[in-house]
Amino acid sequence: MGSVSHIAADTRSPSRTLDGRMAVVTFLSDYGLGDDFVGVCHGVIARIAPQVRVIDVTHGIERQDVRAGALVLRRTLEYMPVGVHLAVVDPGVGSARRAVALRCGDADRLLVGPDNGLLWPAAQRFGGVAEAIDIGASKLRLDPVSASFHGRDIFAPVAAHLAAGTALADAGEPLDPATLVALQLARAHVADHRVVAHVLHVDVYGNVLLDAAPEDLAAAGLRRGEPAMVGRRRVQYAKTFADVDPGELLLYEDGYRALSLAVNRGSAMDALRLAVDDEIVIRPAPS
Amino acid sequence: MGSVSHIAADTRSPSRTLDGRMAVVTFLSDYGLGDDFVGVCHGVIARIAPQVRVIDVTHGIERQDVRAGALVLRRTLEYMPVGVHLAVVDPGVGSARRAVALRCGDADRLLVGPDNGLLWPAAQRFGGVAEAIDIGASKLRLDPVSASFHGRDIFAPVAAHLAAGTALADAGEPLDPATLVALQLARAHVADHRVVAHVLHVDVYGNVLLDAAPEDLAAAGLRRGEPAMVGRRRVQYAKTFADVDPGELLLYEDGYRALSLAVNRGSAMDALRLAVDDEIVIRPAPS
Amino acid sequence: MGSVSHIAADTRSPSRTLDGRMAVVTFLSDYGLGDDFVGVCHGVIARIAPQVRVIDVTHGIERQDVRAGALVLRRTLEYMPVGVHLAVVDPGVGSARRAVALRCGDADRLLVGPDNGLLWPAAQRFGGVAEAIDIGASKLRLDPVSASFHGRDIFAPVAAHLAAGTALADAGEPLDPATLVALQLARAHVADHRVVAHVLHVDVYGNVLLDAAPEDLAAAGLRRGEPAMVGRRRVQYAKTFADVDPGELLLYEDGYRALSLAVNRGSAMDALRLAVDDEIVIRPAPS
Repeated sequence: MGSVSHIAADTRSPSRTLDGRMAVVTFLSDYGLGDDFVGVCHGVIARIAPQVRVIDVTHGIERQDVRAGALVLRRTLEYMPVGVHLAVVDPGVGSARRAVALRCGDADRLLVGPDNGLLWPAAQRFGGVAEAIDIGASKLRLDPVSASFHGRDIFAPVAAHLAAGTALADAGEPLDPATLVALQLARAHVADHRVVAHVLHVDVYGNVLLDAAPEDLAAAGLRRGEPAMVGRRRVQYAKTFADVDPGELLLYEDGYRALSLAVNRGSAMDALRLAVDDEIVIRPAPS
Repeated sequence: MGSVSHIAADTRSPSRTLDGRMAVVTFLSDYGLGDDFVGVCHGVIARIAPQVRVIDVTHGIERQDVRAGALVLRRTLEYMPVGVHLAVVDPGVGSARRAVALRCGDADRLLVGPDNGLLWPAAQRFGGVAEAIDIGASKLRLDPVSASFHGRDIFAPVAAHLAAGTALADAGEPLDPATLVALQLARAHVADHRVVAHVLHVDVYGNVLLDAAPEDLAAAGLRRGEPAMVGRRRVQYAKTFADVDPGELLLYEDGYRALSLAVNRGSAMDALRLAVDDEIVIRPAPS
Repeated sequence: MGSVSHIAADTRSPSRTLDGRMAVVTFLSDYGLGDDFVGVCHGVIARIAPQVRVIDVTHGIERQDVRAGALVLRRTLEYMPVGVHLAVVDPGVGSARRAVALRCGDADRLLVGPDNGLLWPAAQRFGGVAEAIDIGASKLRLDPVSASFHGRDIFAPVAAHLAAGTALADAGEPLDPATLVALQLARAHVADHRVVAHVLHVDVYGNVLLDAAPEDLAAAGLRRGEPAMVGRRRVQYAKTFADVDPGELLLYEDGYRALSLAVNRGSAMDALRLAVDDEIVIRPAPS
């Protein structure tokens, strides 16, 4: 058989970047690990660029939740080796949404994925989009291209070829970065000694990520080590989980230097009945 | 300690195939990722063949569902680099079922796993079985062999040695390919302008994979872009999800060129209350 | 941006151990795969030590279950290549618990993780702790160190540098191994022709792992192939699942040479309503 036997190895594959590091594709998606979607993309990359290493960021993004994917891509990117960063959360697959590859202004990181906002916050954080290519009809695609699995047929192969040394300009047709779909994440604001924040994400522990930064709390007069009000609930603005007793709520600077709500050895989501997008008001606790 | 300290590195390990590619073991199982089964097999392979790359196809096959495993192995294999293809869905572990390594007629792909039909459809698709070896008592096994974890003790070590360059004939005793357990997957048929199809698999999105091909629908007079009847339900025979409104049913050619039923941004399994093996009848919608 | 842009590659990275094997970090945690925790640790390791291979043992340890993590680390370690063994199950992150790197007496395996007992059983099994270093303030940490994600900020970077060739003594301050937190796993005892055992773990199949060994059963007069009483239930002391009919209970030597209870094609946990830590009494069945 071999209807995709044309997945030829990119023989120019340098496998190492100029400074001797191994070429890397990082991969984030909402595919989950219960099916073969992720494994097949790994296979396609390995066939095209056998020496390229693939690092899975996560495939646990909530199905078709472009914003959650964009948030995770943005916050994890600085911990990843510089390389090609493949991201697929693509509710519009098969529609007119564009498929793109972007070069960031900082460090020449390359982002590959759908043009639906998923790549946008990460690109903004890394110097903006210096170069954008429409890869929807790329000659680097698999042939045929299915209607529903562009991760395998377009995004993974293009990412693999880029990691193997293909120039970005050769991956498709240039497009105006100003026409890319933007995705603005919510941002807390401070008014009248109160922080009006929003739930950006809830992790598997039930920790609740907010769109507020420690600076916002400081601007509202909140001090670490003192109690705060989150709505009508009193919580400790703590440094670590261990600052509060098991079962107690805390507000803390999480692993990504953003503010989160948590319950020591419990779930803040359950305790506060919060969901993504909920607005919460934080203020100093009355003494 | 070190009861398995004999897991010695295969020093003949070429680590590259003759044409310069990295040697690869692909790995599919029903082990899930909640326990250490998959990780331990990776460890065993890495100890025997340190330079061999392991690509996880998926470990999310439904527990002991040999047919689902066979289906996924068959359809994903063409996207994987040529190498050793390890597959373990093994409800009969510890019984008399044989452990085998097979060489396919096409491209010398090697399949390693239990002789329970799991490898059969993939082998048929890749040129049939050109050579078959019983590896149940292979000298390449770990010692001792447990009664319940042949993935670690037999299949992974044999796969690793094969990827490292051991000749297939040295992996055990030859057996007659005609005696291998066959597994015939269901196949739709067309009669009286109707396609009688069956549910082969339901993925995590609730998309329902059928045993029918686009040719079957054409033979029954169905045309893409027109409505069809699936049982008593009217569905669109569409090209992409975006061709129907959110919440609506569609019949489409899926990522593996097979026909599937889906609901745009929903679950066809829920909408149609279908389960694996259910028979469904597809016909042109009355106008 | 680039607040962690100091994650510089360890240019001394040998990438191969002295005997030519690829340097390896194995990684076990309770992070799960639904979030980006595991992926980010992979990214951090790849930036520091690009040539080091990472093998995921499992990330499915029950949340904050130090004992389950310790058990899995201990039993899987012998199947892993000798290298740096990173383990993170860390309910006390942010508290005063120490972060440590240990050298085992056997084979120079290095263990990296929290000093909460997680590493202890594995260290005991591999020759005890020959050298211990407090890495809480290691110069190899990321900077800043978050209060809640020491896997990324302390453990993964230290593991990566050690795999890349940094001497253990350079990873932090020496500490007295006698001060490490010990974790003693339960151990069955035999009295009056009965084995008093405990449930150590239940896997995803519902198989129930006991703290008893085949020697314990022999000492109580139990023979393989004969029936035994587990509490008031009659079970077969079998060699393999296939020795009993589907749906029947068996007692068997599991894949790690420990005794387990199982139901052929079913769940022993459901059949016996057992949970971790439950005590069970095993004796020969009356004839």
